Amino acid sequence: MSKRVAILGASGYTGLELIRLLLRHPEVEITALGTRQEENPHVSEVHPQLTGQLDLRLEPLTAEQLAERADSVFCCLPHAASAEAVAQLMEHELDVVDLSADYRLRDKDVYEKWYGVTHPDAGRLPSAVYGLPELYRNQIKASHLVANPGCYPTSAILALYPLLKAGLISPAGINIDSKSGVSGGGRTPKPAFHYPECNESLMAYGVGAHRHMPEIDQMLTEAAGESVEVLFTPHLVPMDRGILSTCYATPVGDVDTEGLMACLRETYADEPFVDVVDKPPTTKHVAFTNRCHLTARVVRGRALVISVIDNLIKGASGAAVQNFNLMQGYKETTALI
Amino acid sequence: MSKRVAILGASGYTGLELIRLLLRHPEVEITALGTRQEENPHVSEVHPQLTGQLDLRLEPLTAEQLAERADSVFCCLPHAASAEAVAQLMEHELDVVDLSADYRLRDKDVYEKWYGVTHPDAGRLPSAVYGLPELYRNQIKASHLVANPGCYPTSAILALYPLLKAGLISPAGINIDSKSGVSGGGRTPKPAFHYPECNESLMAYGVGAHRHMPEIDQMLTEAAGESVEVLFTPHLVPMDRGILSTCYATPVGDVDTEGLMACLRETYADEPFVDVVDKPPTTKHVAFTNRCHLTARVVRGRALVISVIDNLIKGASGAAVQNFNLMQGYKETTALI
Amino acid sequence: MSKRVAILGASGYTGLELIRLLLRHPEVEITALGTRQEENPHVSEVHPQLTGQLDLRLEPLTAEQLAERADSVFCCLPHAASAEAVAQLMEHELDVVDLSADYRLRDKDVYEKWYGVTHPDAGRLPSAVYGLPELYRNQIKASHLVANPGCYPTSAILALYPLLKAGLISPAGINIDSKSGVSGGGRTPKPAFHYPECNESLMAYGVGAHRHMPEIDQMLTEAAGESVEVLFTPHLVPMDRGILSTCYATPVGDVDTEGLMACLRETYADEPFVDVVDKPPTTKHVAFTNRCHLTARVVRGRALVISVIDNLIKGASGAAVQNFNLMQGYKETTALI
Amino acid sequence: MSKRVAILGASGYTGLELIRLLLRHPEVEITALGTRQEENPHVSEVHPQLTGQLDLRLEPLTAEQLAERADSVFCCLPHAASAEAVAQLMEHELDVVDLSADYRLRDKDVYEKWYGVTHPDAGRLPSAVYGLPELYRNQIKASHLVANPGCYPTSAILALYPLLKAGLISPAGINIDSKSGVSGGGRTPKPAFHYPECNESLMAYGVGAHRHMPEIDQMLTEAAGESVEVLFTPHLVPMDRGILSTCYATPVGDVDTEGLMACLRETYADEPFVDVVDKPPTTKHVAFTNRCHLTARVVRGRALVISVIDNLIKGASGAAVQNFNLMQGYKETTALI
Repeated sequence: MSKRVAILGASGYTGLELIRLLLRHPEVEITALGTRQEENPHVSEVHPQLTGQLDLRLEPLTAEQLAERADSVFCCLPHAASAEAVAQLMEHELDVVDLSADYRLRDKDVYEKWYGVTHPDAGRLPSAVYGLPELYRNQIKASHLVANPGCYPTSAILALYPLLKAGLISPAGINIDSKSGVSGGGRTPKPAFHYPECNESLMAYGVGAHRHMPEIDQMLTEAAGESVEVLFTPHLVPMDRGILSTCYATPVGDVDTEGLMACLRETYADEPFVDVVDKPPTTKHVAFTNRCHLTARVVRGRALVISVIDNLIKGASGAAVQNFNLMQGYKETTALI
Repeated sequence: MSKRVAILGASGYTGLELIRLLLRHPEVEITALGTRQEENPHVSEVHPQLTGQLDLRLEPLTAEQLAERADSVFCCLPHAASAEAVAQLMEHELDVVDLSADYRLRDKDVYEKWYGVTHPDAGRLPSAVYGLPELYRNQIKASHLVANPGCYPTSAILALYPLLKAGLISPAGINIDSKSGVSGGGRTPKPAFHYPECNESLMAYGVGAHRHMPEIDQMLTEAAGESVEVLFTPHLVPMDRGILSTCYATPVGDVDTEGLMACLRETYADEPFVDVVDKPPTTKHVAFTNRCHLTARVVRGRALVISVIDNLIKGASGAAVQNFNLMQGYKETTALI
Repeated sequence: MSKRVAILGASGYTGLELIRLLLRHPEVEITALGTRQEENPHVSEVHPQLTGQLDLRLEPLTAEQLAERADSVFCCLPHAASAEAVAQLMEHELDVVDLSADYRLRDKDVYEKWYGVTHPDAGRLPSAVYGLPELYRNQIKASHLVANPGCYPTSAILALYPLLKAGLISPAGINIDSKSGVSGGGRTPKPAFHYPECNESLMAYGVGAHRHMPEIDQMLTEAAGESVEVLFTPHLVPMDRGILSTCYATPVGDVDTEGLMACLRETYADEPFVDVVDKPPTTKHVAFTNRCHLTARVVRGRALVISVIDNLIKGASGAAVQNFNLMQGYKETTALI
Repeated sequence: MSKRVAILGASGYTGLELIRLLLRHPEVEITALGTRQEENPHVSEVHPQLTGQLDLRLEPLTAEQLAERADSVFCCLPHAASAEAVAQLMEHELDVVDLSADYRLRDKDVYEKWYGVTHPDAGRLPSAVYGLPELYRNQIKASHLVANPGCYPTSAILALYPLLKAGLISPAGINIDSKSGVSGGGRTPKPAFHYPECNESLMAYGVGAHRHMPEIDQMLTEAAGESVEVLFTPHLVPMDRGILSTCYATPVGDVDTEGLMACLRETYADEPFVDVVDKPPTTKHVAFTNRCHLTARVVRGRALVISVIDNLIKGASGAAVQNFNLMQGYKETTALI
């Protein structure tokens, strides 16, 4: 049965990608697009990419209006604003995939420390599921509120979680050196994303301070069964989309390249969107797809795992559709490649 | 004898390029950097490219202060603001190269129509020299106020002026299809220059409305000895710097490729920065230089002239240094390549 | 009923795009991938983008083998090689969409002049249909051999054909200034496409000599009902994909912007993939889609029409699927966006 | 006194950069350009960037010819070929800066293992100086054969050498995650550097196998006074030029960010081309210069040092000119910025 779907925060890049994906979804009708601005622009003014494909205006929408017009909501609002909206949506018994960070961290205090705000809906944290289907497929199926993972965490967790869980790498001393295309920074013009500043350039940013670090810690701690504190260093790369994470860890015992690879291959054997590959993976090979390519090596006594995803698809909107499919009982891969 | 030089509007891209060029100039000491902001940042905070190379702060500067600290001023302010500043600088008998549009158009009414403001210093228009050394070398040498040409006009005028003057192409029906890198849009973040918007993309803009059109008209009218109205269409190309202008015109009589090329070669035989080349020129071959590469063809009964420059150097700051060298009696090519 | 489809020349960029599109086609099974190399690599070695999505090897295939394994063939071979293959495929009563230039030009002599080879299958030229659905939808439906248009011609013909046909612009003096991303040059490494050569650079090429010029002539001559010889100047732009054509013509009578726009809007009112837009169109807005965005202006007594397409989709593989859908009686938009 | 200078292997990117730098050198006359091809092309055909700036042809040159025409030679030949040429040049008492890897590794066996060839001139290894002026200024001044460092090693050694020497970081467990622009791959077209393959993409390469790894080992072993084996992982970034190395190490004792920074600041206080900066450095800020920007942090108990250089300038041709200046007794910074 077809579902009526709304997208809040539809004017940004994750909103655009969601619309593009959902337009191909045979069981979905997009019925409302929310914005916090008040001009009610047509979606083709905001996203000329959609000219001729969707005849809707963006508009400020209350939870009541959304409850009338939609069954499910994708929420692409900024953190804190998102939880405020989600709290109301849940009261109206809507299913929600939240693309913000608000329900990812299980510990309210960690959230409040890293995001610098009081959590607007902390009571609901225990009922939200971390939306990485490769880890929580069954919980997602049963959930009404899914916290869609961050883009960097997706790339790092898919790379490291199985190896930690299998005890093949040490929980101590993990370095994650990540590189992202510029769309990860959102659609608001800022000096760092001004074309002549970031084109033909490369820099690290958020060194020791990026908010995806505690999210990675949380999930890898779960994998290891003991506290993990990663060193996560993101870099900005002059390209539109794509994340490559080069993850460095200490191998346990005498595990070798083949041992790491075997673990990854076994873990992901039946996953529709994770491919373990032999050559170092390339972001372009997963761009515009919901896929993750992974490889691992032991070199000079250290373990490397390299993963690539499209930050806007597997790192955001594609994962959100994958989660939506699971929540609604559709085939998991519907509308995704 | 060495000159003390100030740069107003030093925080933008033309300011940065001017500083980089003037740091190599053996006869120049940069003594003041103006800004309209009030935080007095060190130049290496504004332009980290200059770390360790120049120990100056940007500061708001009055004409009186400038007159004390400098002999010559490069003015990189926005239009109208520039003429207001220049009027005062001229009162203090400073030499000025103005990189804004304020003194380029000889007809105050044309200026006011296209720029939408009252000219703040129209009385000085007759004494300003249009700073294209290839046309006005002697006048520039004798001038105290040089209006540095626009980037697009430089590429178009160097391509078409000699052919019009020689009567080899018709003044009617000239189309100038120009393509520019993004640095031409300045340093202020705007949606059109947000990396994920303009990267991997191409568009025309300012169709029929770009302010460089009357500037090109003015100079080509002079060349032709009759009124010229070009159709000028700029495009934004995903690269940092470079302008390529493909100029279409109607050849006069039976002039052929060799006729056009001979005229260009003869015109520019002694020019230090204009090269007539056989193959279609490439912006990269003139990037970071003060040079213009040009070629011409007659194809299917129509004339094409293609020119390339670096919009920030030959199209702005390099030309400004070239003009400065002429005004001060230095070797024209000093500090330029 | 589902069709078995083969792709010849599957190792290039148009082959990759075809596979990606056809994998989403509910009525298609890809059954064979041809290559002229003999190593029989797996498609995921040749196109790592397809890892996990298609389990086929590329292999040299005879017409006999193809006739056994496929109902329809997309031919992505180089010119001349393509016609040789197509001649045999047609003997085996396969339906063919040919993406090469071999069946586009109706006049064998024009083909042989511009392509410098004897046409291997000239006898079949009259039975091939030029595969621009916006012009020849009904003929394509009835055809077994469709000549898929060139990428530049698609952008130019969609822009100019209706205006010429309506008599709104003059057949004389048409200038087409086109700009293309680098994927248009194919997958074979060459100096001109070496990253550090073409990145951050812009150049015209094939001035007066590009093989798409006679193809544009042919179609615009048909539109005008009299001989049209355009001046077509392509440029190479540092981006992966996208063509923007800025077309200059002389308006007839007192037609104005609205007159041109009205003609375009009426022509394309029911077209699924052509959108007439008000603002100058942007290649990024049609990238990865089968769409064309178009706008027109009258400025200073001249007509401009600007069109954008994705050179690999609407300019090649997307159009091929659109043609295939028409030929096979599927919904024209199947598998396309 | 002015020097006559020749460049062997002048057709590549390091050759081009050398010519550009040396054209600005007041004490240098470029008198010969060597190539292993036999067509004797004019330098402006090979490098259109130099049109109008240098009137020389590239030609195959014997050591005898070079001895007649030059005092100093920059050798940009591939490894092994370079040492064969250098051996002859040294016989003719020419001063040589060798940009290949041939004289960088002091241990012939290490060279032969990693480069897979017999060293053609191993006897001269002890007399060659590793051309990093920040380490070996005095030895370079006294040398006639300088081995110009590799681009990646320059970025890594400048970051880590002082901290190892000061005992602030541990010699064990050093990870160097480097990212480079594409020009580092040279001028020969290859699939990996084909624009549509590497544009908008990112990948690791040479994992555990890059030849710069033993070079880094050698120098850091010297710094540490004990054997150092780094894990070095290079990545290819879609930009022309620039290297950013993110170096991970274990801090010794309770050294903190300020301790690392103080060591770097003190080490490089008088260096003309190394700047210790507070914010994470950006490759664009050193592009087209001979400078290195560096910063360091202690985060979560681990040390990070981030360095940026222009791979073609400080990582190759600029360093070569710096070495040349030292060898010839010129001011070290001549012709460099």
